[in-house]
Parts: sequence; structure tokens; C-alpha cells
Amino acid sequence: MADPNIVALAGGVGGARLTDGLAQVLQPDHLTIIVNTGDDFTHLGLRISPDLDTVCYTLADLANPETGWGRKNETWHAFEHLKKMGMPDWFQLGDTDLATHLVRTIRMNQGWPLSQITQDFCRFWGIKVSILPMSDDIIQTWVYTDEGDLEFQEYFVKRQAEPKVNGFRFEGVEKSHPAPGVIEAIDKCDVVIICPSNPWVSIDPILAIPTIKDAVDRHPVFAVSPIIGNKTVKGPAAKMFSELGIEPSALAVAQHYVNLVDHFLIDNFDQVLVRDINKLGMRTYVTDILMHDKEDRGRLAGEMVDIIKANM
Amino acid sequence: MADPNIVALAGGVGGARLTDGLAQVLQPDHLTIIVNTGDDFTHLGLRISPDLDTVCYTLADLANPETGWGRKNETWHAFEHLKKMGMPDWFQLGDTDLATHLVRTIRMNQGWPLSQITQDFCRFWGIKVSILPMSDDIIQTWVYTDEGDLEFQEYFVKRQAEPKVNGFRFEGVEKSHPAPGVIEAIDKCDVVIICPSNPWVSIDPILAIPTIKDAVDRHPVFAVSPIIGNKTVKGPAAKMFSELGIEPSALAVAQHYVNLVDHFLIDNFDQVLVRDINKLGMRTYVTDILMHDKEDRGRLAGEMVDIIKANM
Repeated sequence: MADPNIVALAGGVGGARLTDGLAQVLQPDHLTIIVNTGDDFTHLGLRISPDLDTVCYTLADLANPETGWGRKNETWHAFEHLKKMGMPDWFQLGDTDLATHLVRTIRMNQGWPLSQITQDFCRFWGIKVSILPMSDDIIQTWVYTDEGDLEFQEYFVKRQAEPKVNGFRFEGVEKSHPAPGVIEAIDKCDVVIICPSNPWVSIDPILAIPTIKDAVDRHPVFAVSPIIGNKTVKGPAAKMFSELGIEPSALAVAQHYVNLVDHFLIDNFDQVLVRDINKLGMRTYVTDILMHDKEDRGRLAGEMVDIIKANM
Repeated sequence: MADPNIVALAGGVGGARLTDGLAQVLQPDHLTIIVNTGDDFTHLGLRISPDLDTVCYTLADLANPETGWGRKNETWHAFEHLKKMGMPDWFQLGDTDLATHLVRTIRMNQGWPLSQITQDFCRFWGIKVSILPMSDDIIQTWVYTDEGDLEFQEYFVKRQAEPKVNGFRFEGVEKSHPAPGVIEAIDKCDVVIICPSNPWVSIDPILAIPTIKDAVDRHPVFAVSPIIGNKTVKGPAAKMFSELGIEPSALAVAQHYVNLVDHFLIDNFDQVLVRDINKLGMRTYVTDILMHDKEDRGRLAGEMVDIIKANM
């Protein structure tokens, strides 16, 4: 059977890792990755798209394998000097990463939409699959916390996700449009995959863009849990569930995606949850969903593609 | 006798070197350096002030001793990546130098005048003498050439000063104002020193700002020739004289500054020109004006201060 056409919704390190696996096992023209841009922000006059960069760096094999974000073999000479000159140091900017932000900022000031800039970057970095920002419009994720409303990067990086969360807002999303190609890619795909990204701040912003959720709804949707046991593999998703009064688990993620997701992949560790997730109307699959290295990513993506083919 | 209060007009590497010497031999509050900003330009979205940076880096002992411009122990990781991403490569941007431009750009976008930004930089870099841009207004040196009018950096760096020069224009200078402190520093100084900088594109722009030349005229003016024999120590000054139909020499420089400069320092090599320069109404001094290293700079500056004291 031919490879399925897949659209993956992604954000953050977990999203980057699974899409890297999918890129390993699918032909390039069978994969479109739609990336959260709600975390994008302007810092030191530079326009920064953390999730797009993480996905691109990972797929181009430029990412720092230890952190998951930033670049490998990175140096910090400009950043050290910026700090010496009194600039804020809470968002780390490596020398080559800085170049990425500088080029993005130049292009934006020249009027290029983010989708075109991203396409250009993918060309320079030899990325063959299609990577699209969710929108070319500015959408800003705000985190409501017990210390006030914080822009996402301020909450996540500056405050290290410490303030207690009580809600989210995606500023600008109501009037936003999907980036060119997003709806077209979803319309022609066989399956939408929701990556093991943070449901609240990586996937929900994408689905909040008018017309995207409707387009996704017309297709079978596969999701991979970002939670194993009661812990997130990476990032504050489990902490957010807790603070919102929900026991964090793969079941809680499934409940979050109820009526949207048809097929749900959870970790062997969570075998016991299969029955409860099935009750939500999902078909549940159990495997080793933890991605330690590049091989793990390809292995998990391969298993998913096999499941997808078996369901086609 | 007490140290004289000195104002130095400077631009480029020659200016940076002599002002470094003056900073070695004078108490910090006895030296104000007024720097050409006609070469300033915007590149890759960054506001760059090459002459200010060269003077500041040199005085802070941060300059690359081989080139005279840029920083020592510099790395080029961001620049290499910028090039890979299709950005123009004719203006080299080291990693720490890039941080300087980034901070300058941020501050300008925040509304800081260049003079305040420069003061801030001097504080970070431990520079104790006063360094002032000639103006906080945008003044743009254009070089008229046989290949059309070129912005200075385009002529000097991108085209490597190859096109034949037939004139100059300092766009915006008529309506410009001296930076805060410039006229005050000149008014209270004992002597103005014109550094061995390019007369056409480093010193003339400063003197073209309304009120600066009048203020300078009220004081004894010492100049050091940027030409030895018929060659510039560094940069295109001699080539410019030739292309403008003037035989390049210390005498040609003296003629350029006639009715402004009272005391003129030339190299031992040009001993033969003393009589002709004296005829222009200048008092001429002959010494070794070539500055190979930091010690040379202090030695030449010390000789100048001795001459100044003897004339006070």
C-alpha cells in the first residue's frame, strides 16, 4: 500500500522529535508539518519563532540533541557580549541561532510573510518536507497565572513555568487566517497526526485558528500522548493539567482531544488506561512512545505509519 | 604646566590610533574625541557606526590589532550562517561586533540618541575619555564616482574604494546639529587636534556641520598628516587626492586645511616639505608619525602634547 499523506500538527521539542521520525519514514511530499506560532515573540528587536526553529533545526539535523532546542555546536559570543552590555539574559541566543532570527527579522521588515521565510529557511537547510507556520498573522499565546497574565515566553522561559496557571488566551486568533497551504494540505491528506506536544499551548493555538479545526475534523486524527504516567516527557503540560484541576495522564490528554482524535497512542506504561480511553470513542494503541534518539523517532513514526496503513 | 584640554576630531583607523595615544598621555577629563558618523549606515537591519566602533574598540583595547577595525579574538559564526542564508557578505560582522550593532539598533528604536548610546557603550567598555559622535542626526556621506554616486560603505567596503572619485556630498549635514557636548567641549578646550584621518570623508563631514567649524576656528588647531610621501598610511585618502587631480602629499593635506590648521605635524620622510607648508601660514613639525603599535601612539601623542604645552 502506498504511503499515506500525512499532516502533522506540532509545537515544541516533542513535536519536533515525532515529525523528525515521520520525515525519516515518509517520502518528503507525503508530509506537511503545521507548526504552532503562538509562542513567537519579539526580543532584542528580533522576531523569534521558537517552535518553527525547533522543528526546522531538528529536521535539518542542526538541533542541539541535549536540549532539544537551539543548535548543536553552538557558540555564545554575541550573547555574552549582549549580557555585558546590559541586555536581558533570560532568553539564550546562540551565535548561529541569532543569525536565523536576524534573517527572519530582515525578511519580515521587507514584508515577507512568515510562511515564505520558513520556506526559504527550509531550502537553505536542505529540508525537503513541507513546514508551514499555522498562520502568517501574529497570534500571541498569553498564560493566565496567579502572578498575572504573562506572554508565553515570559511564562515559559523567563519565569521557568513556575507561576500557577489558570487559563490561556490566543490573542489575535479570532481574526487570523491559516497560512497559505495549510487548509490545502489538510484537505488532501489521509490522516492528521497530533504530535506529543503540549495540548494547551502547542496544539490548541493551531486548532483555534478559524477553519483549521473544521478541516482537521474531516479526516481521521491520530494523536500521541505527551504524558507518560503522570509526567510530561518534556515541558510543563502535566503541571498545567494539575494547576487547571485535572489529574495529568494520557487519559486526561485523550479527554482534552475528545470528539477530535480517533486513534490514540499511549505508552506501554499506561496500558491500564486503554479501556477508559477506548470509552471516549478512540481506538487506543500501546507502544514505547518515548523518543530517546533519532532511531527511536523513526521507529515510533514507522509504527504509526503501519497503524495508519492498516486503518486505511 | 597643566595638561592642555584637547578636542580631537577623528575618523577611521588613523584617528583611532592617535586618540588612543592621547588617551594614554592625558588625564581622561582633558580629552574629548569627536567622531565622524558620515560613514554610519544600516545593514541587515542593524545600525552600524564604523568610526565610532573603531575608536571605542581601540581605546577599550578590544580592537583587532591586525586590521585596525573589528574586534580582537573575534569569531564569525553568525556571519557564516548569515552568508549561508543568502545574506550579503561584503560587510563583515563578527559575533561580538554584531552584539554591538544589535544593542545600538535596539537603543535607537527605543529613541535613544547616538550620543547617549555611545556614552553607555563607553561605560560598559571602561572608556574614561569622552567620545562623542559629531551629530545625533543622520548624515550620510556619498561618494561621487565614475560609476555613479555610492554610499560611503558601498564605495569603501563593497567596492573596495576602486571606483574613481570625483566628489563628495554629506547628505543631511546642512540641517544637522552637533551632538550635545560637542560645541561645549570645543569652546572649553585649549587646542583642537585633527587626527591623521581621511580629510575628505572623515574630517570634512565633521567640519561641515553648522557651528562646528566656527567653534574650531576660535582655537589653535594642530593636524597630523595622514599621508607620508605620496601614500596614505591606511585607507584611500591618497587615491582620492590623485583622482581629484591633486598630487597626494602632506603638502596637499596642508593645503586642504589652509586657514584652519595652525600647527602641522609631518613625517621625517617629508622634511623637504616644511618650507612649503610653512608658507601656508602653518608652523610645521617633523617627527616619526607612523604608529606601528600602542607604544608608538603614546610616543607621538606625548610629542604633540609637549609641542602644545610649548605653544600655550
